[in-house]
Amino acid sequence: MTGLQTDLYELRMAASYLRRAMVERATFSLFVRRLPAQRGFLVAAGLAEALAFLEAFAFDDDDLAYLRDVGFDQPTLEAFARLRFTGDVWAVPEGRVVFADEPLLEVTAPIAEAQLVETAVLNLLTFHTTIASKAARCRLAAGGAQLIDFAFRRTQGIEAGAAVARASAIAGFAATSHVEAARRYGLRPSGTMAHSYVEAFPDERAAFRAFAADFPTNPVFLVDTYDTPAGVRAAVDVIAELGLTGPVGVRLDSGDLSALARQTRAILDGAGLTQAQIVASGSLDEDVIAALVADGAPIDAYGVGTRMGVSYDAPSLDSAYKLVSVGERPVLKLSPGKATLPGAKQVFRDPGGNSGDVVGLRDEPPPGDRQPLLVPVMRGGRRLDPADPVGEVRAGRQRFDADLGWLPESARRLADPMPLAATVSAALADLHRRMAEQFAPVSTGGVRSAGR
Amino acid sequence: MTGLQTDLYELRMAASYLRRAMVERATFSLFVRRLPAQRGFLVAAGLAEALAFLEAFAFDDDDLAYLRDVGFDQPTLEAFARLRFTGDVWAVPEGRVVFADEPLLEVTAPIAEAQLVETAVLNLLTFHTTIASKAARCRLAAGGAQLIDFAFRRTQGIEAGAAVARASAIAGFAATSHVEAARRYGLRPSGTMAHSYVEAFPDERAAFRAFAADFPTNPVFLVDTYDTPAGVRAAVDVIAELGLTGPVGVRLDSGDLSALARQTRAILDGAGLTQAQIVASGSLDEDVIAALVADGAPIDAYGVGTRMGVSYDAPSLDSAYKLVSVGERPVLKLSPGKATLPGAKQVFRDPGGNSGDVVGLRDEPPPGDRQPLLVPVMRGGRRLDPADPVGEVRAGRQRFDADLGWLPESARRLADPMPLAATVSAALADLHRRMAEQFAPVSTGGVRSAGR
Repeated sequence: MTGLQTDLYELRMAASYLRRAMVERATFSLFVRRLPAQRGFLVAAGLAEALAFLEAFAFDDDDLAYLRDVGFDQPTLEAFARLRFTGDVWAVPEGRVVFADEPLLEVTAPIAEAQLVETAVLNLLTFHTTIASKAARCRLAAGGAQLIDFAFRRTQGIEAGAAVARASAIAGFAATSHVEAARRYGLRPSGTMAHSYVEAFPDERAAFRAFAADFPTNPVFLVDTYDTPAGVRAAVDVIAELGLTGPVGVRLDSGDLSALARQTRAILDGAGLTQAQIVASGSLDEDVIAALVADGAPIDAYGVGTRMGVSYDAPSLDSAYKLVSVGERPVLKLSPGKATLPGAKQVFRDPGGNSGDVVGLRDEPPPGDRQPLLVPVMRGGRRLDPADPVGEVRAGRQRFDADLGWLPESARRLADPMPLAATVSAALADLHRRMAEQFAPVSTGGVRSAGR
Repeated sequence: MTGLQTDLYELRMAASYLRRAMVERATFSLFVRRLPAQRGFLVAAGLAEALAFLEAFAFDDDDLAYLRDVGFDQPTLEAFARLRFTGDVWAVPEGRVVFADEPLLEVTAPIAEAQLVETAVLNLLTFHTTIASKAARCRLAAGGAQLIDFAFRRTQGIEAGAAVARASAIAGFAATSHVEAARRYGLRPSGTMAHSYVEAFPDERAAFRAFAADFPTNPVFLVDTYDTPAGVRAAVDVIAELGLTGPVGVRLDSGDLSALARQTRAILDGAGLTQAQIVASGSLDEDVIAALVADGAPIDAYGVGTRMGVSYDAPSLDSAYKLVSVGERPVLKLSPGKATLPGAKQVFRDPGGNSGDVVGLRDEPPPGDRQPLLVPVMRGGRRLDPADPVGEVRAGRQRFDADLGWLPESARRLADPMPLAATVSAALADLHRRMAEQFAPVSTGGVRSAGR
């Protein structure tokens, strides 16, 4: 099942390598070439999914039968039948802040294996990182208010919905409407009622009464089906009528949210419901939330849907998975605009936040008191940490919380952020220069490996 | 497993309906409120996935155990355990062209069931329609050239990759790089080699020689790893050296594709390889393709990836799933800007293409020689046609082919397209007016049902 979750060319290249007994270990480096305009940083995510994919990678009988049908020969099918991912992986842990040109993940494996898993690994890290980075902007906008993932109905597929719940939780969202995702990742499920529920009763009060009777623990009343202030008053009356003394709330889903939130707050406070929460939703994104916060709108929680869930303004990232060494030989690519640096790498971060990251060689000592960002996460095709979806998300969120404190304001700000630029270590620059000189390109660009 | 693929509020509303024995059949209508700026039409897609979801909808023991943990009571859990989707569905077949305010799908079912499936059905139809509509623009741009889906590495998740392959095939893409999607939907898998393959050999010729030896049937050589014209000459030499007489091609993945395609064509033709195909790829979308076509670039096939696969300029649609009747009573919503029309509907299309669609009541006779767009697809929770993933895609593509011929140029054009505006039938307008008068809103908006 996992074996065909790849591009045909990966299978063809792998078949060619296997047939030629090209079993050298290759290292591929996955990084983002440049950030979208409105991103001052990225939040690494998707690693857990990528590692689960690598661990499960195999061709089953149906996969092999299909590959026979499309022309792969018997020796190749036998080689695929035996193939598992046996490589080593270093990666940036989920939740850490990263920038352009910094490896998020490096795979070292026999070249056929490293090639076969390219498509899925690139897909998962790109997608989850895209969403976590967008969700992080919502968090920065919301100040102290809570964020709830409401995206499931318009994510790019059912599984994407679960990924969005997970990635947004890493970025600090407090809850999700997506029940399966809440179960899978130990998130808090959250939900109130829809307009159709209110419409299914003779009037709004009857709907609120029924809902509060059925869900007396923290009911949140959707108050904008007909007229928002009247809806708030209906909720207040029902709360009094049923003698609800626990937490309650109202949700605003349309109109001038700032003005309506103020009106709503006044009605609630006038009725002594000073603890009642106001939840806002409806086409929200970080810019709308920031405007509401700047306007002093008394909103306690934001339900954020589609615009976060597809990362509407930047729904993908310019990511790449590039060969950086074969065997013991570093490889570099000299093509203008698409140059890659040779060798397995490490990213060294200044914990004081006084300067940008340094990208160096994996084996060089950290410069000064800088700390390495990539850690070993898989050896011989097995994860070094046991899989625990709930713990993964919690740890990711803790890492992001810590990195948020470190991130300079220039990269944090929502409008025209300035990402930190990574510099190259002396050792890596030196290797690159020696290789480029040794294999001076004869044309407009080129790729060269040392020692060939 | 399917039972939790929903929003928590759907489960709460359904629980409330079931507890109150509110078993009236409700009709919900799914439509797109407005098209993104650069869309003159939409291509309906995702119906097969939505119907499969409805047919499989159920709560298993694990689902129920989780729902108990988050507070649902025993009678509700017992009702959920028995619940299946038993409703009827009318829908626009996949591949048909649709516009704003036209129902893509209508569900009629006991209100709890209709509510529970909202999230997933809305997700699937919105996503697949988003992608098919973007892919259709690539097809319009490409003229006679073939299109290949290269998106899998940057779609929003693994399953999204399969959905993109399927939706783009409906819109007319000829092949996909995604092997699992090709198997599942009977598509043509397509793939060549990556730069890393060329880099894994001592030089380009050695790589081409190895690849052609291993895949002598229609090899396509990636020629831009070092220097494109030199790469084309290397491919020509290897083709001659190995005596390849079948179909061959080269792929250009960077640089000035128009100029390079011309140079490449000249080299190939000069070597007598007039049948050799030129494939272009690299950050393509409909605008880039249209510019290449307008420039007369001799490109035979385009590999289109990320920008199609996430619908980069409009990664979602403003879709809605709205209650339009309860029992025999039509329901309408009067809120300014979010008004909905009452009752189960039909879309009537002028086969001559002389005027826009008419949205009417499902049971009214078609005006003139207009043809209904929605057809019954599910009855009592069972699909009326047996599921056949391969046939579905083929039939969808045929429908889109036919509708493309019907679509006016003003809606087809890539820049500033003008979608056809649907009008409302006299019968529907009359029902709406009678209901609005009978239940004149007392506030700024409202929802009213007839006969309450």
